[in-house]
Amino acid sequence: MTMLEHIRQPRDLKALPAERLAELAEEIRHFLVRAVARTGGHLGPNLGVVELTLALHRVFDSPADRILWDTGHQSYVHKLLTGRQDFSKLRAKGGLSGYPSRAESPHDVIENSHASTVLGWADGLAKARQVRGGNGHVVAVTGDGALTGGMAWEALNNIAAAKDRPLIIVVNDNERSYAPTIGGLADHLATLRTTNGYEKFLAWGKEVLQRTPVVGQPLYGSLHGAKKGFKDAFAPQGMFEDLGLKYLGPIDGHDTAAVESALRRAAGFHGPVLVHCLTEKGRGYPPALEDEADHFHTVGVMDPLPADAGRCPPTAAPVTLPGAPSWNSVFGDEMVRIGAERTDVVALTAAMLRPVGLGKFAEAYPDRVWDVGIAEQHAAVSAAGLATGGLHPVVAVYATFLNRAFDQILMDVALHRCGVTFVLDRAGITGTDGASHNGMWDLSVLQVVPGLRIAAPRDAGQLRAQLREALDVDDAPTVVRFPKEPVDEPVPAVDRIGGVDVLHRAPHPDVLLVAVGVMAPVCLGVAELLAARGVRATVVDPRWVKPVDAVIPRLAADHAMVAVVEDNCRTGGVGWAVGQALRDAGVDVPLRTFGIPEQFPAHAKRGELLADLGLTPAEIAGHISAALARKESPS
Amino acid sequence: MTMLEHIRQPRDLKALPAERLAELAEEIRHFLVRAVARTGGHLGPNLGVVELTLALHRVFDSPADRILWDTGHQSYVHKLLTGRQDFSKLRAKGGLSGYPSRAESPHDVIENSHASTVLGWADGLAKARQVRGGNGHVVAVTGDGALTGGMAWEALNNIAAAKDRPLIIVVNDNERSYAPTIGGLADHLATLRTTNGYEKFLAWGKEVLQRTPVVGQPLYGSLHGAKKGFKDAFAPQGMFEDLGLKYLGPIDGHDTAAVESALRRAAGFHGPVLVHCLTEKGRGYPPALEDEADHFHTVGVMDPLPADAGRCPPTAAPVTLPGAPSWNSVFGDEMVRIGAERTDVVALTAAMLRPVGLGKFAEAYPDRVWDVGIAEQHAAVSAAGLATGGLHPVVAVYATFLNRAFDQILMDVALHRCGVTFVLDRAGITGTDGASHNGMWDLSVLQVVPGLRIAAPRDAGQLRAQLREALDVDDAPTVVRFPKEPVDEPVPAVDRIGGVDVLHRAPHPDVLLVAVGVMAPVCLGVAELLAARGVRATVVDPRWVKPVDAVIPRLAADHAMVAVVEDNCRTGGVGWAVGQALRDAGVDVPLRTFGIPEQFPAHAKRGELLADLGLTPAEIAGHISAALARKESPS
Repeated sequence: MTMLEHIRQPRDLKALPAERLAELAEEIRHFLVRAVARTGGHLGPNLGVVELTLALHRVFDSPADRILWDTGHQSYVHKLLTGRQDFSKLRAKGGLSGYPSRAESPHDVIENSHASTVLGWADGLAKARQVRGGNGHVVAVTGDGALTGGMAWEALNNIAAAKDRPLIIVVNDNERSYAPTIGGLADHLATLRTTNGYEKFLAWGKEVLQRTPVVGQPLYGSLHGAKKGFKDAFAPQGMFEDLGLKYLGPIDGHDTAAVESALRRAAGFHGPVLVHCLTEKGRGYPPALEDEADHFHTVGVMDPLPADAGRCPPTAAPVTLPGAPSWNSVFGDEMVRIGAERTDVVALTAAMLRPVGLGKFAEAYPDRVWDVGIAEQHAAVSAAGLATGGLHPVVAVYATFLNRAFDQILMDVALHRCGVTFVLDRAGITGTDGASHNGMWDLSVLQVVPGLRIAAPRDAGQLRAQLREALDVDDAPTVVRFPKEPVDEPVPAVDRIGGVDVLHRAPHPDVLLVAVGVMAPVCLGVAELLAARGVRATVVDPRWVKPVDAVIPRLAADHAMVAVVEDNCRTGGVGWAVGQALRDAGVDVPLRTFGIPEQFPAHAKRGELLADLGLTPAEIAGHISAALARKESPS
Repeated sequence: MTMLEHIRQPRDLKALPAERLAELAEEIRHFLVRAVARTGGHLGPNLGVVELTLALHRVFDSPADRILWDTGHQSYVHKLLTGRQDFSKLRAKGGLSGYPSRAESPHDVIENSHASTVLGWADGLAKARQVRGGNGHVVAVTGDGALTGGMAWEALNNIAAAKDRPLIIVVNDNERSYAPTIGGLADHLATLRTTNGYEKFLAWGKEVLQRTPVVGQPLYGSLHGAKKGFKDAFAPQGMFEDLGLKYLGPIDGHDTAAVESALRRAAGFHGPVLVHCLTEKGRGYPPALEDEADHFHTVGVMDPLPADAGRCPPTAAPVTLPGAPSWNSVFGDEMVRIGAERTDVVALTAAMLRPVGLGKFAEAYPDRVWDVGIAEQHAAVSAAGLATGGLHPVVAVYATFLNRAFDQILMDVALHRCGVTFVLDRAGITGTDGASHNGMWDLSVLQVVPGLRIAAPRDAGQLRAQLREALDVDDAPTVVRFPKEPVDEPVPAVDRIGGVDVLHRAPHPDVLLVAVGVMAPVCLGVAELLAARGVRATVVDPRWVKPVDAVIPRLAADHAMVAVVEDNCRTGGVGWAVGQALRDAGVDVPLRTFGIPEQFPAHAKRGELLADLGLTPAEIAGHISAALARKESPS
């Protein structure tokens, strides 16, 4: 039995002599590499926080003390130390979540995967403790990447407003969000990192200056008031202290004793305090350290042995099957071609350059791409500026993260009629990353944005064509959305009416199936099943789903029922919009809408979830034929 | 003819001798007080930026140089200097907008009223200039209040990342957003403001230290490297310089020559530079200066003479008619009562304590209310923390600003099933503040949030009741939304079925009218007009509009048509949700939905806009009777 297996709860860890921690850390890294190699998951970030997590659980008493992780993907070690050592089904249906999960453990306070949130949570928890009384520390573990998000700054500004409300912020600084962290903040943190010898300097200065009387008082005395000033020159933590935060650091995040010592000092401080820990993403695993792009931020299933692992690429970029290109790579390759043709096309990413598929574009046109950090609001509003300045920006973000920029898309991009194209990958059910990573909201919340147009390509050819169509719109925002899975086979059209592709036709049809994007093959499957029951279907792909093409109500009028199938929350989505289009055209043909129910799906594979949620040809065909039957024989 | 009337464009201003500027400034203040007194508008902020605006237009060449205002309500002086001196219809239909407007002038680059945006816009414009070549300065005028918004920090972080991309940030620091600015940043700016004598100190220190040889080198030499450190102690601009921004200031923003000088220095700098100007909100107008709450941030129509003006209250709080309480005051009074009954109820505001109606609550329970700054994201996420800590937070924000926190409501509040109540005032058409202030999006975008419940009270009694119902929900977010106008007369119910109030009934009814909140009187008017045409209507108020009450489809089944009327964007709103509820119940009764069309309405009074948009009893009744007629006699 390993030492790790003896740690069933944080109490067991506290009982361990300090000199055995290095051995335990090694065991944990060994476990992580082998376990994550079997399932895939966030490897690099967790290898980086082994000692930090040990120190946190030795100093604090979770769950009475609240430890919050930003983002939650760095919580694997925390899971191991809080009674969760079965990683065999990590991120799989029924297995451990890849993020904190309140259902799994009382040690998990929040289950977050959108970055930059924990400082706000911590501020609320600290205020609640103040109002209700009670003890218990609030400890927020954030990172240099998460600090590029604006909401982190809003929180810091509020935390700093109360000098007497204890709250411990641990900055896990590994110089990277997904890729290296960017911006003025990163430069400042780099300055902090390379600083040393401040205490030494101060001692020297004190000795010298106390020997130097000036105008009736020791120079040291008058300069003592300038201590903060000195300190800023030699250990310029100024930025955080200027906000009113006590600063401790920088500390070697792989020296458990040093981290424990700093955390104990922080725990004794009666106000907000920031502990700055330097860690190395991928620590202790050579293949991760040697991977310059992202230090194995996320990996797929791989051989964990270093000799082989070196040949196994990380899969932070979407998983690709042999022969099947990813949606992102189709997008990325087309962007390179477009970039050569149009010098006005530029690209933005929010700390996800390679994962969204912009790697090649950045190599080809390094002066026309910007990584703005984990800062979707800034991506959108600065895109409005770029468009007003005469360029056509492409903002590529995961679909779920676009929600962070909703107000900016509405008020800055759309109100100003800016030609900005948002490319949303990982749209629809993404699966194993859990509830917060599904891109199931965009087709709903974007419906209200005046003038905005949304394309949902069904295959690679359509993606290439619709991306170009989007880039031709210079006076309104456009959106192109596609999923995480490998690109399916092409789905040929048998006709095009207006902007609508007809994918399947039958004589004297009963039902019009409107297939949104990649739901085209599902709808063709529905048509086939319906045909077997004697129900004839037309299947169309509207290609541009907002606004609803005027062809749809015209076609609908020739059918007894319309059904819309989308890989998006059914609430507020394309189905609802088609309903409005029918009403506006005075076409009162019954409508049925199929999409993701209004809930937060648990983590599982995409196929498993679609089946669980009833988005299969059999289920949809069943509902439609039942509805038609009821209609024909009303009770 | 006044000097001001001779200024038709910025060029005329440049021709003016510097010694005449003080007189011009006085003329402008005189004009502003008299003009805004006639129409109402943002008085205090504009009185504060007279000299700053003069200096900006003398140093820069708008529109070749781009001057951006954050927020746009401080652009009145800019309008006066760029050919817009007819303020007689300010904020009225057909008159000048209260914000920048691209339709009005090429000098208006962006028309923003949601705060904290200009740094992002400026970053985009500066990058576009870099990519496309070309000259022209980009000048972003922001404020200490706007800097509390996270997106401002995202922008600063990006702006600072390129040391060689010129961009001028003017911080108009009046120590207030609407009310005094809060947080660690405000404390830091206060430190900057009270700093002086740095240069004097440095000269003295240099003289002393150069006389002090230490270990083979002058102490001054080794400390010279610490210059920034010294500077931080005596003029701690550190925070901005730590980010990599050149800092100039603090400068007296009412000394035109000093501001001009600083701006010229900034214009010559080949990188991002921040000019920190201190101004006084309400400058030069005693009644504004004497108003401690908000220095006449916004005023209604008033007598401009100081003797009378002192008796005229500012109307940043909603305009109230004699005898008619405002929605906010009904909410605020009820909160005070609830606060006495429930010690777990706390409140949050985003820099709008009094305007949202929380003034009395803050007086009664100062330890249970927090102003988080212009930081809606933080309001929502820290509310999730407060709820998890055992409290029930009420987050009161203008409806339009809730969009800033959409992701946090979804991922932090709803996913974590936190009992947080969002109170949205100024919901629906607000009118004179223009497109960006209408609260017409909430009923649409919030539809997708799993578990969230929305109340739309129709009168004061319902507001009080529904607020209490909302506060009884401890495991999901709730929303209570109401408009800006004074509270209407009570609208009595004739019956309640399930959770639905029946407001009007007729035998053998033809159409079911579903009235959302304050559209109840409109729907009763529709029913009356329909009755005159022989069409019988039932009018119901569902009270809670999300989720749709199961009573609605049951009632609908007994009618030939359903119509939903809401003071929200028709797209994605309650009408669409009712459509889904009917379909799910298999009730294929034709539906018609009435709401605000999918567009950005121009500024005008609420009544004028509702009429323009077709939301009157006559228009709605006309549409319904026509639809019923078509239905009865299909072509």
